[in-house]
Amino acid sequence: MKRVKVSNNVIRRLPRYLRKLDELAAAGVSRISSGELGRQLGLTPSQIRQDFSCFGEFGQQGYGYKVTALRAEIANILGMDRGYTAVVVGVGNIGRALMCNFDFAQWGFTLKAAFDVKPELIGTEVEGVPVYHADELERYLTENHVDAAVLCVPKQLAVANTERITRCGVNAIWNFTNMELTAPESSTIVENIHFSDSLLSLSYFISEDLDEKAARAARINK
Amino acid sequence: MKRVKVSNNVIRRLPRYLRKLDELAAAGVSRISSGELGRQLGLTPSQIRQDFSCFGEFGQQGYGYKVTALRAEIANILGMDRGYTAVVVGVGNIGRALMCNFDFAQWGFTLKAAFDVKPELIGTEVEGVPVYHADELERYLTENHVDAAVLCVPKQLAVANTERITRCGVNAIWNFTNMELTAPESSTIVENIHFSDSLLSLSYFISEDLDEKAARAARINK
Repeated sequence: MKRVKVSNNVIRRLPRYLRKLDELAAAGVSRISSGELGRQLGLTPSQIRQDFSCFGEFGQQGYGYKVTALRAEIANILGMDRGYTAVVVGVGNIGRALMCNFDFAQWGFTLKAAFDVKPELIGTEVEGVPVYHADELERYLTENHVDAAVLCVPKQLAVANTERITRCGVNAIWNFTNMELTAPESSTIVENIHFSDSLLSLSYFISEDLDEKAARAARINK
Repeated sequence: MKRVKVSNNVIRRLPRYLRKLDELAAAGVSRISSGELGRQLGLTPSQIRQDFSCFGEFGQQGYGYKVTALRAEIANILGMDRGYTAVVVGVGNIGRALMCNFDFAQWGFTLKAAFDVKPELIGTEVEGVPVYHADELERYLTENHVDAAVLCVPKQLAVANTERITRCGVNAIWNFTNMELTAPESSTIVENIHFSDSLLSLSYFISEDLDEKAARAARINK
């Protein structure tokens, strides 16, 4: 696929568009205007048209977007149809929660294996995915094609495991360790789930809301 | 606290600054320049100075920032010192993983209770937090001050539970259900952990990387 450079903000909105289009398709909606799509997502119609224009022409002036065609195009841009494979490194609570509850296949990834050090886990399967000893990681990654590692090890093991994974040629990490794994200039692709960043943003918005309410109350009581 | 309107991008960077400053403090660093902080975070010094200037003056020209003082100021802005309370709604794999592994207290939140429907969980404690029957949710939320609900119920129960929670006056939700909980115009504060959005972004970056490598190889082989 030929690629144009697209801003990070646009890339971040694509999965949201995809989820919304899935929702619309499930509700039996076959066409939607940029205006209505914008209203449902809290975006302006022109922002939506601009986002989609980065990847070519989808819509038809006055007719809106065809839901299934737009969905297929966005899935293609996101690489959901490219058959990526992944392994889970660290089968603790979060690793297990992902393996049991998160539908990797729905988003285009096949989980091939998991790695841990706990003797009672080695040789078992979690949702059909075999768990190997962490010592096997290098052997497995060199013998099998793996596109991404889902990193769920304890914080203090995060950097060492990142080095082991990338040395074997796996260049993409989905990071659940709440650690910054690589230097900013690294070529490794790291996508972080930073739970604490998200909770602290919530904390900020709660604080802002409380302060605004207090300021309003102070004005009324003056 | 008096508040100025701050852009969403700045708010999103504050938790990253906080994590970095914690890391620096742990490494014994007491002062840091905006240049060095920027280098470590992949940001320009002027962006950092601009971000911090939204909240007043922290740095001293030529001397850099005092790590502990800047950390305290950011923690204050984020509301980490305001003693917020939270409950977990849904103690499945992800709810349990959060309760067992995520240190709410470190980020300023106290978990007070959890709710589920599974008989074997009711009346037990998870990491010292009591689990009540979901039928008790309204009673608990009206009798106790709760700032935020951590929503970990199955997808199909997400919207109904959001309504129950907000009807009791809890206005902030940390959302793990992968559903859009509210309309864009709602006043409820929702902070989403959208696992699939994150994985799809990773998928995009893997695709981009593979396409660039293929394009490069094609040029070389011409």
